[in-house]
Amino acid sequence: MTQHTVEKTSVTLLGLGAMGTALARTWLAAGHPLTVWNRTPARAAALAADGAEVADTAAEAVAANTLIVVCLLDDASVGEALAGTDLTDRDLVNLTTSTPGQARARAEWARERGARHLDGGIMAVPPMIGVPEAGGYVFYSGSRELFERHRETLAVPAGTTYVGEDAGFAALHDVALLSAMYGMFAGTAHAFALIRGENIDPVSFAPLLADWLVAMAPAVHRTADQLRSGDYTKGVVSDLAMQVAGTPAFLSTAEQQGVSPELLSPYFELMRRRLAEGGGEEDLTGVIDLLTR
Amino acid sequence: MTQHTVEKTSVTLLGLGAMGTALARTWLAAGHPLTVWNRTPARAAALAADGAEVADTAAEAVAANTLIVVCLLDDASVGEALAGTDLTDRDLVNLTTSTPGQARARAEWARERGARHLDGGIMAVPPMIGVPEAGGYVFYSGSRELFERHRETLAVPAGTTYVGEDAGFAALHDVALLSAMYGMFAGTAHAFALIRGENIDPVSFAPLLADWLVAMAPAVHRTADQLRSGDYTKGVVSDLAMQVAGTPAFLSTAEQQGVSPELLSPYFELMRRRLAEGGGEEDLTGVIDLLTR
Ligand SMILES: NC(=O)c1ccc[n+]([C@@H]2O[C@H](COP(=O)([O-])OP(=O)(O)OC[C@H]3O[C@@H](n4cnc5c(N)ncnc54)[C@H](OP(=O)(O)O)[C@@H]3O)[C@@H](O)[C@H]2O)c1
Ligand SMILES: NC(=O)c1ccc[n+]([C@@H]2O[C@H](COP(=O)([O-])OP(=O)(O)OC[C@H]3O[C@@H](n4cnc5c(N)ncnc54)[C@H](OP(=O)(O)O)[C@@H]3O)[C@@H](O)[C@H]2O)c1
Repeated sequence: MTQHTVEKTSVTLLGLGAMGTALARTWLAAGHPLTVWNRTPARAAALAADGAEVADTAAEAVAANTLIVVCLLDDASVGEALAGTDLTDRDLVNLTTSTPGQARARAEWARERGARHLDGGIMAVPPMIGVPEAGGYVFYSGSRELFERHRETLAVPAGTTYVGEDAGFAALHDVALLSAMYGMFAGTAHAFALIRGENIDPVSFAPLLADWLVAMAPAVHRTADQLRSGDYTKGVVSDLAMQVAGTPAFLSTAEQQGVSPELLSPYFELMRRRLAEGGGEEDLTGVIDLLTR
Repeated sequence: MTQHTVEKTSVTLLGLGAMGTALARTWLAAGHPLTVWNRTPARAAALAADGAEVADTAAEAVAANTLIVVCLLDDASVGEALAGTDLTDRDLVNLTTSTPGQARARAEWARERGARHLDGGIMAVPPMIGVPEAGGYVFYSGSRELFERHRETLAVPAGTTYVGEDAGFAALHDVALLSAMYGMFAGTAHAFALIRGENIDPVSFAPLLADWLVAMAPAVHRTADQLRSGDYTKGVVSDLAMQVAGTPAFLSTAEQQGVSPELLSPYFELMRRRLAEGGGEEDLTGVIDLLTR
């Protein structure tokens, strides 16, 4: 048998915070030559011991390789860190969390400096990096060619999901999913508040809550279908009129349990507004129209 | 081989709306003798053809059997429908949606009339009734003895989950889970609003959204653990300080996309309040304290 040595792409990584360090470890473990830089040099020490090249300056790190991955605090820190570097002919992959507008502006900024650009939004926390079964992944958008070229290298720390040429789409998907998650967390906070003070163990209640949310999450497929067709009555099970009729019971239960309705009321208010406009036979989808008007 | 005929419990069902009719069909299909009553008699016709006894009055229906299942519009309609009936020695199972307070009062009301009482909260829509793989179920609370006695009969239309002797607990669990679901729906409405107007197909976006929510729902286990222990820093992954630091990006993305922040802001506001009180190293669990103060 012959041993084949496959050349692994060399990576430069700027930023060794919690996330950058987790990324770095997976590339080192997978045998990718890695050059790192961090503003505070001390954070690079452990990685150096594991085989990473440590650059003294960001400029030096950028000069070392073609593929430059950036994972810094925010978009402003990316501007600061890259200010004195030569990005000509570099493949810049920015995994720093940004807004869609920032990502689009950063793509243009990179183009002006002669770099190709791909933006990424990380849908994972550091302990999920390098742990495929944890299900974390990164949204990518921008140059499809760049994505295809580095797909394998980018897949080392986490799954990859390419969502379009628009540099802002990765950030938009990232923010959209996290926003939905905060809505879910607001709902679960209200639920836990309701059972508080009763003789109900939160640890027994949690699986009921989790299973219910998991069972209800696929409702978004019907919503998507209705948004695409424009017919908000398509496949409706409980119509808006019926659901609005149920809301007083939710509010008076909150009152009985001494729970502020502040996390629930805004959605109920939009449901009522849509009903008043004549959406009684629709699903809940019309609420989305009220948000974007 | 000998044919064993197992006596199926006879059931009286009051209420043949969408839900009552679905329940009735499953008991008939399973061979339970069934007596039905509905305020508007016409709704009983199809069930009579399928073998149900149709009572002319609620009193007659209640006199026919020991097990009386009620599935009417709301608690007030239960009071009206049962007003002229003799509940002495009856097993009253009330599947009408109520608040915990209404359920407790109705249990006391039933006891005064010589009936045993069990309250139920249906976690299913009519198409899920009699379809075990759909995962619908009913929360029960009140007399455990009554629940055990009729467990098999009650399990015919949907799964059963007994949550305690307190008559209000089924309603409380029901309202808590549905409230959390509305929170999740508020979050998904915001997410769909964000991608609207962009060249993103909602039908391609929906699976990403659903999978993400399914992946994040188990966070409630950590919340429950923290609530039980009182230590809100236990097992924290992204602390409150870090998460609050991320909120401006969510709000400015909403603004960039022309989306009202009204469904997101109240939760972010509570996060900020908790941070201001010194909860920066905690998980998001402290928000629950602010709701019940
Ligand atoms: N951690 C998570 O759970 C998570 C999840 C998804 C996405 N993300 C995203 O990943 C990125 C990094 O997160 P993290 O958790 O690694 O953050 P972190 O632990 O706070 O690290 C921040 C990094 O940014 C550097 N930095 C900050 N300001 C700088 C500046 N002006 N110039 C140069 N470097 C600067 C820091 O350098 P020093 O060491 O010198 O301070 C450090 O390397 C963020 O955009 C975050 O939103 C994180
Ligand atoms: N449908 C669902 O998706 C769903 C899901 C979970 C729980 N539930 C709960 O199940 C219960 C029944 O729901 P449903 O969908 O069957 O409602 P529905 O289709 O609107 O039917 C309401 C029933 O209540 C009767 N009723 C209303 N007011 C009455 C009164 N004053 N006296 C006597 N009968 C009266 C109606 O009789 P008439 O025919 O004479 O009007 C009808 O039988 C409700 O508490 C609901 O919250 C429903």
